[in-house]
Amino acid sequence: MHSPPIVGLLGGGQLGRMLMESANRLNIRMNVLDTENAPAKQISAHDGHVTGSFKDRASLRKLAETCDILTAEIEHVDTYGLEEVSSKVKVEPSWKAIRIIQDKFHQKEYLSKFNIPMAEYRELHKNSAEELKAIGEELGFPLMLKSKTQAYDGRGNYSVKSQADIPAALEALNGRPLYAEKWAHFKMELAVMVVKTKDGVLSYPTVETVQENSICKLVYAPARNISDTINRKAQELARNAVAAFEGKGVFGVEMFLLEDDSLLLCELASRIHNSGHYTIEACALSQFDTHLRAILDLPIPPQSLEIREPAIMLNILGGSAPDSHLKIAERALSIPNASIHLYSKGDARPGRKMGHVTVTASTIQEAEAIIQPLIDFVDGTQRANTQTSKPRPNIGVVMGSDSDLKTLVPGLKLLKDYFGIDPEVEITSAHRTPTYMAEYASSAASRGIKVIIAAAGGAAHLPGMAAAHTSLPVIGVPVKGSSLDGVDSLYSIVQMPRGVPVATVGINNSINAALLAARILGAFDARVQRKVEEYAQSAKEENLDIKGVKLREIGWEAYHEEMQKR
Amino acid sequence: MHSPPIVGLLGGGQLGRMLMESANRLNIRMNVLDTENAPAKQISAHDGHVTGSFKDRASLRKLAETCDILTAEIEHVDTYGLEEVSSKVKVEPSWKAIRIIQDKFHQKEYLSKFNIPMAEYRELHKNSAEELKAIGEELGFPLMLKSKTQAYDGRGNYSVKSQADIPAALEALNGRPLYAEKWAHFKMELAVMVVKTKDGVLSYPTVETVQENSICKLVYAPARNISDTINRKAQELARNAVAAFEGKGVFGVEMFLLEDDSLLLCELASRIHNSGHYTIEACALSQFDTHLRAILDLPIPPQSLEIREPAIMLNILGGSAPDSHLKIAERALSIPNASIHLYSKGDARPGRKMGHVTVTASTIQEAEAIIQPLIDFVDGTQRANTQTSKPRPNIGVVMGSDSDLKTLVPGLKLLKDYFGIDPEVEITSAHRTPTYMAEYASSAASRGIKVIIAAAGGAAHLPGMAAAHTSLPVIGVPVKGSSLDGVDSLYSIVQMPRGVPVATVGINNSINAALLAARILGAFDARVQRKVEEYAQSAKEENLDIKGVKLREIGWEAYHEEMQKR
Repeated sequence: MHSPPIVGLLGGGQLGRMLMESANRLNIRMNVLDTENAPAKQISAHDGHVTGSFKDRASLRKLAETCDILTAEIEHVDTYGLEEVSSKVKVEPSWKAIRIIQDKFHQKEYLSKFNIPMAEYRELHKNSAEELKAIGEELGFPLMLKSKTQAYDGRGNYSVKSQADIPAALEALNGRPLYAEKWAHFKMELAVMVVKTKDGVLSYPTVETVQENSICKLVYAPARNISDTINRKAQELARNAVAAFEGKGVFGVEMFLLEDDSLLLCELASRIHNSGHYTIEACALSQFDTHLRAILDLPIPPQSLEIREPAIMLNILGGSAPDSHLKIAERALSIPNASIHLYSKGDARPGRKMGHVTVTASTIQEAEAIIQPLIDFVDGTQRANTQTSKPRPNIGVVMGSDSDLKTLVPGLKLLKDYFGIDPEVEITSAHRTPTYMAEYASSAASRGIKVIIAAAGGAAHLPGMAAAHTSLPVIGVPVKGSSLDGVDSLYSIVQMPRGVPVATVGINNSINAALLAARILGAFDARVQRKVEEYAQSAKEENLDIKGVKLREIGWEAYHEEMQKR
Repeated sequence: MHSPPIVGLLGGGQLGRMLMESANRLNIRMNVLDTENAPAKQISAHDGHVTGSFKDRASLRKLAETCDILTAEIEHVDTYGLEEVSSKVKVEPSWKAIRIIQDKFHQKEYLSKFNIPMAEYRELHKNSAEELKAIGEELGFPLMLKSKTQAYDGRGNYSVKSQADIPAALEALNGRPLYAEKWAHFKMELAVMVVKTKDGVLSYPTVETVQENSICKLVYAPARNISDTINRKAQELARNAVAAFEGKGVFGVEMFLLEDDSLLLCELASRIHNSGHYTIEACALSQFDTHLRAILDLPIPPQSLEIREPAIMLNILGGSAPDSHLKIAERALSIPNASIHLYSKGDARPGRKMGHVTVTASTIQEAEAIIQPLIDFVDGTQRANTQTSKPRPNIGVVMGSDSDLKTLVPGLKLLKDYFGIDPEVEITSAHRTPTYMAEYASSAASRGIKVIIAAAGGAAHLPGMAAAHTSLPVIGVPVKGSSLDGVDSLYSIVQMPRGVPVATVGINNSINAALLAARILGAFDARVQRKVEEYAQSAKEENLDIKGVKLREIGWEAYHEEMQKR
């Protein structure tokens, strides 16, 4: 045994390279088994690496002799070899876990024993058209035909839309062990990175993945427009699934979110994963940091897995030309807040993962706006106008009745024209549409809304009811009705019971509601705060330099006369 | 010329190693001139490195032949050698800049031509006691005696407290070219990393550095308790100083902030710098990323230099034992949000920079609380109680008169006991202490305050006046006085003119003011938001499950009777 322990790594591709970055920072020696000059080896100059295939038993034995603990950046490894060497070195995660997980059918069979929800599936025994037709009649079309082994990035999968596709599907996956899976009509694909340690199972937040041609294209961290409940449920499902396996390290769990908000596990990887690359910039400890710490029994503070700032990851794939991916990286250099990772993998093939870009911002909406030009560039569909897509609103404005709109207009205009903030505006009455109002308010936070402005008149219940259905700050604007001069609205809004506050502004004063919303955003966003300061400054100047000077110049009598003419 | 360009680097220490991390991610080839197995070479496996000293002319010539552009991680290089090879390869920044900067006296002479404010200084021509005594009489004691060249981390500096220190000072710096500098009575040391590109001069935000034994110990990013004006002025000064030099790349500028808020340049480095390590985690592009981009004429979006999240960097220095630094790193593994960088420099000497730790958090106060146990560990003064130091408050509570305190107590208790938030509480009257009130409100944001709660009664001006002096959200609590039932206070607070909003809550309702403040913080801090949700949940349960059940059980008559007895 050496001290500190030496890690042996099966596979030195981009995942191994990023793992090496983490090992380098902690001065942990890692010996890589892969071809000469593999990406991970390029950033680790020592003579402990082994040249060969990670599928070759002799090379594996050789690597095992150089290290104290073995791990892998892929699941397609020789688990019988790992089993053999496990008497001499530690293997994390266990070869047992990898053996089950690398066969997707076996994985499903195993997980179903632990009550993990998954799409229904049937094994094919003869790989015949009749057999698949019968399964299709049972599970319905479309269905997914899948290879049990050696499947990744869409390879080994075939979507069978109808009976007519059966011959082509069997032809495409000819000679492979197969199973068929019921089609998951999902509204979103989610992923959770899970860290299994000697002490328990931790998880990163739930992220949203967007696939194109069965290859991961984008990851949104955190997932957009999902409630806290779903975020928690997805993490729980992922942790439960990973807890079923033996060994330590990072696991990637992919899931479907169905229309009814239920979750199905899609598949699980016994390794660091593409859907976790965002953690490098978005979390204090990346999936690569935590994988190393988990296998070496080093501490992992759970807080370090939280998202520091929302992030969007875009994969850089090989394209039609040999340098297509380099052009994307070059374009990314001009994208604000973009961190670029190139893998130095040599020749690019179309669809090959050559690098990735992560954009961080204080809100996911801002990150979306920032990365859009790069997505457009990747899509080759650079828009004619250079306008970026609108960020999603972080202020929600609701009114009890459309008659309140005219009162809100000055505030709305100020937000839009001066602050460049385009709020979400809705009519939702506490009395006429109580259920919609409740839904609106309770889902606001998960839509990215940070402040709600609610205007109402008379027995003005809307601001208080909205506040009762959300944990966000609610600003109330009392609207002056036909009687009682707005005092009825003011009292209805401001005199809330203890426990449910409404930030009330003056009667009809939507300008102040807008400014208050801007101050709230500004307390956490320096750019908005600067605009608030500028606004105050210009009001000061207007009073001091313009009105004041004029009054002194022309005298109060003339000034008053002029005012009456306005 | 090769394509893409190959970079040659003089020096392969920790700065070179972190520069290599950035080069690796962009797949930029960098050939390092330094001893074999120098830290930077360890993470770059190719045969283009040169073994030798970066001060040796022949080695420099050899490196120049392998690359297209030369840069350096230190300023103590052979600038005549750089001048010679500059006819064949690019040198960035220019050898001219490095030559001036590496001689600190020359640097001061040069910068004074550009009206850069610096402490007064005098050259020593004879290094004699009489000469230094005369300078001391002119500039006053204490003063700093400094070596013009080869000075770093406090080496080459001697603080001369009085005439009595003169012989020891001259002995300590014997044989070196010297100058003396007037003592700067600073309240804070600041630093700004500057990026000089082909298009202009950019800067990172102003940070605060804390030195111990003349070696950088801590960096706070952004600097604590400085106004926006000083932040901007310091950046401006740093950019102006760097603009005076020829060439491209990152420069480190250290400054003193004096008691009167004026700034003096302390010194400037023609390279990536210890006070910029925080940029790795805190900014989208680190100083290492931007140095490479600057010298290679690649784009640098200015937004990528902003601070994503406050950060504190702590240097890991060699200590009394050979493994003292490893013990610090080990302790850091348990610190939440801590990113650890070890430099793999071999043997540790006391004071040698062996690594660093950066802690990020959503506020600098939170980062301070998180890193405190590690600082305590480093200081070897682990406190008897394990309590971490209190984070600085992010809610400010002010009242017009101490008679308002009893109204505020329920809200203050809720914040402290339920939310664990200890607000800053002050008495400041708009009428009796108008100037203090204005100071308090206008400096609140720079103290880290995010929301102000202001309570007042009668002609209640305090909330509105506070709002007029800050861009933060202000929550107003109308306090019920002896007459008019609090309606006077309510109207005074809520009916603010357009332009200056106050978030008004119900009369005497400090609970709602506290909850509203928590909602505002919670919109940007998931932990606080969760507490708000739990609060609402427990109120709901109390009504539904406890009071509701009881009323049904015992009937309304018994319930009413019991209530009257309370």
